[in-house]
Amino acid sequence: MPSALLTDLYELNMAASYLRRGMDQEATFSLFVRRLPANRGFLVAAGLEPCLGFLEDFRFEEEELEHLGSRLGFDDATLEAFRSLRFEGDVWAVPEGRVVLADEPLLELTAPIAVAQLVETYLLNVITFQTTIASKAARCVIAADGRDLVDFAFRRTQGVDAAMAVARATAMVGFGATSNVEAGRRYGLPVAGTMAHSYIESFPIERDAFVAFATDFPTRTTFLVDTYDTVNGVRTAIEVIRELGLTEHLGIRLDSGDLDPLARQARRVLDEAGMHHVRIFASGGLDEMDVDRLVRAGAPIDAFGVGTRVGVSADAPYVDSVYKLVEYDGRPVLKLSAGKATAPGRKQVFRGPGGDVIALRNEPIPEGHEPLLVPVMEGGRRTGPRRTLTTARHLFEADLARLPERARRLQTPDPPKARLSEALGELTGTIRAEMLRRAGVP
Amino acid sequence: MPSALLTDLYELNMAASYLRRGMDQEATFSLFVRRLPANRGFLVAAGLEPCLGFLEDFRFEEEELEHLGSRLGFDDATLEAFRSLRFEGDVWAVPEGRVVLADEPLLELTAPIAVAQLVETYLLNVITFQTTIASKAARCVIAADGRDLVDFAFRRTQGVDAAMAVARATAMVGFGATSNVEAGRRYGLPVAGTMAHSYIESFPIERDAFVAFATDFPTRTTFLVDTYDTVNGVRTAIEVIRELGLTEHLGIRLDSGDLDPLARQARRVLDEAGMHHVRIFASGGLDEMDVDRLVRAGAPIDAFGVGTRVGVSADAPYVDSVYKLVEYDGRPVLKLSAGKATAPGRKQVFRGPGGDVIALRNEPIPEGHEPLLVPVMEGGRRTGPRRTLTTARHLFEADLARLPERARRLQTPDPPKARLSEALGELTGTIRAEMLRRAGVP
Repeated sequence: MPSALLTDLYELNMAASYLRRGMDQEATFSLFVRRLPANRGFLVAAGLEPCLGFLEDFRFEEEELEHLGSRLGFDDATLEAFRSLRFEGDVWAVPEGRVVLADEPLLELTAPIAVAQLVETYLLNVITFQTTIASKAARCVIAADGRDLVDFAFRRTQGVDAAMAVARATAMVGFGATSNVEAGRRYGLPVAGTMAHSYIESFPIERDAFVAFATDFPTRTTFLVDTYDTVNGVRTAIEVIRELGLTEHLGIRLDSGDLDPLARQARRVLDEAGMHHVRIFASGGLDEMDVDRLVRAGAPIDAFGVGTRVGVSADAPYVDSVYKLVEYDGRPVLKLSAGKATAPGRKQVFRGPGGDVIALRNEPIPEGHEPLLVPVMEGGRRTGPRRTLTTARHLFEADLARLPERARRLQTPDPPKARLSEALGELTGTIRAEMLRRAGVP
Repeated sequence: MPSALLTDLYELNMAASYLRRGMDQEATFSLFVRRLPANRGFLVAAGLEPCLGFLEDFRFEEEELEHLGSRLGFDDATLEAFRSLRFEGDVWAVPEGRVVLADEPLLELTAPIAVAQLVETYLLNVITFQTTIASKAARCVIAADGRDLVDFAFRRTQGVDAAMAVARATAMVGFGATSNVEAGRRYGLPVAGTMAHSYIESFPIERDAFVAFATDFPTRTTFLVDTYDTVNGVRTAIEVIRELGLTEHLGIRLDSGDLDPLARQARRVLDEAGMHHVRIFASGGLDEMDVDRLVRAGAPIDAFGVGTRVGVSADAPYVDSVYKLVEYDGRPVLKLSAGKATAPGRKQVFRGPGGDVIALRNEPIPEGHEPLLVPVMEGGRRTGPRRTLTTARHLFEADLARLPERARRLQTPDPPKARLSEALGELTGTIRAEMLRRAGVP
């Protein structure tokens, strides 16, 4: 269960201070990614759904208040104020599955400043991580070029919950299945899996293991053929398929060695035996660059199991996300810190044929453009249609199809930059000058 | 609550097949890391405690069995067999906090093969991740050279649960506190935190924010001084400290810009004001290499907040861990796959003055050596003393002190390699030849 203690201590300090001072004015925070990682031409928005659930259920339980009082020294008046705190604000966000760029708000939240501050840690965590994974997985989808992909990451993700999020985020961009049984149950995803080397090794010979497994799962057997010798393994699989008269959903899996020549050898041996319907599945430390290389080389692989390196987004395990105050009590604000400057005010992103424009929320939609942020929560309740993973996948497919080649390419992508609207550019200049004056900086 | 569905589908397939065939012989699986990441001279064992909890509670709930039957097609006999499955095996493991090397078993588990296989995914996941983080955090401890470290990673870890594990693993190697309130509660850790830039911005001027915060938290104020202009911010903090007569636990925090010169300027301004007792805290995208550079340069920084890059172990977000069958039904086995060969049999690691020796479990302890693996579970119940995070920290400190310089150094470390005992080397050769024969490989 989400808990209001899923936060950093400084959020509690600030909230306590705001509440004590009666500072209950509305604040708008904007969650966005400042810079894309080196090897990313775009990001895929993800993580919104769990955040909305967290916001709807936000409250301090009695035992949590007790802990804050007895162990962290918060006084009774503060605990009393925390006790009645709920999230009753508004949220605009980019729907999950959509392609986004640097500086584009993924989410904007407006609420009294104490509660808006308290939820920062959770929102940043969940959106940062799921966006990181969806963006990595999208690169696999590009690389696989229509071939099947299966999420095999569970055993080496950064924790068990991370594995659930990885299964969800990979499904969002079009992976066909996951090996993760609990994620399959939780999110209604197809699950896939066959046998491990240990299974083969627990029988006296490989053939016995193949016969046993195929007898037990005659309609879904993929033979793992590389435990001893891959080509021998393929021949043994063919014999067992014939002996048991198997016909449905058959495959062999290659999990080690040089996959391109092994897949070609395996395909040839299978085809020579008339087994054109037996699919070749490849796995073993693959990432999108390996998949791309194999697909471009023409390796006869029908499906890829990708694991750890996608499940932790090994080349870019986080994105540079921030949650910045952009408006307080009706006054736009921005951050001046060196190298961390932000743009003020509630925003919208307009996507059009000439690219994306980051604008103020209340600007009119330019001709031929579409707004990316939509209201998803009003007064603390979800609004609009309930969005499923299928909805997200359709949004992703449509956005991917429109993405320029320079953003899609896997090596040295050149990410498009959103430009600021004229009104937002002007406001940024004005507020910046005003804040510098106020800060006493000449 | 841990669930037996926290596993990959292929584990369920294999377990179902074993149970159907009455294959209830004991299997021993060994969990170890094959190769260290490029920038690691050693690893720190972590993640054992949650694994023991998972094993003790392992069982299929009725609704899980229902799901397996109705959605994944497992038959009634298999569901019946799953229903009564418990973990009643034995576990030997390296206690959390100890330094380990490549190929050294972190954990060895012996149980009937079906259940031993089912728990693979969870054990690998948790031990891989926590070991990854503890090993990264250990490098921060080396870099900080006695200065305080605080875990600031929560907002960008790979999920919320990951943040809990990061708080736990960083505490294990000696971090003094975490910003993560829930982790503090869960693991009894000190929590730390002050204010964000948004707090400063929500007041008309910086000074008002400083006065407000220090009034509310007079005994634990760290002033964030870089919202507008860092040196101005330090002067304002000094004024407020004087005005309010603050004396306890005072600090300033630098979160942007060039930290070395800024810290020196801040220290000078503070010292000139007689405020030698005000500590300087640095944060902002730091990792162990930044901390090392600042410490070596002599920057007057008293404490470092390290976040994302440590919390996801950005340069090496996973370790190459495996869970391999090493014995089945009393017969040592090994894996022959290209580049993935393993050593057979139940093992022990002996640590001595000449380095580590990987041996068979039943070999006598060599003179002057200490065994790393200890029994932690017998017949499915924990055994031996309950180990706390404090125990783990002491083990880490002792092991770190004995680690050779080439393993400790942060740049291009040269990890020591464990050697195989003569008996293990011989057994490996014998079993390998025997398995190749059985596999029909000439």
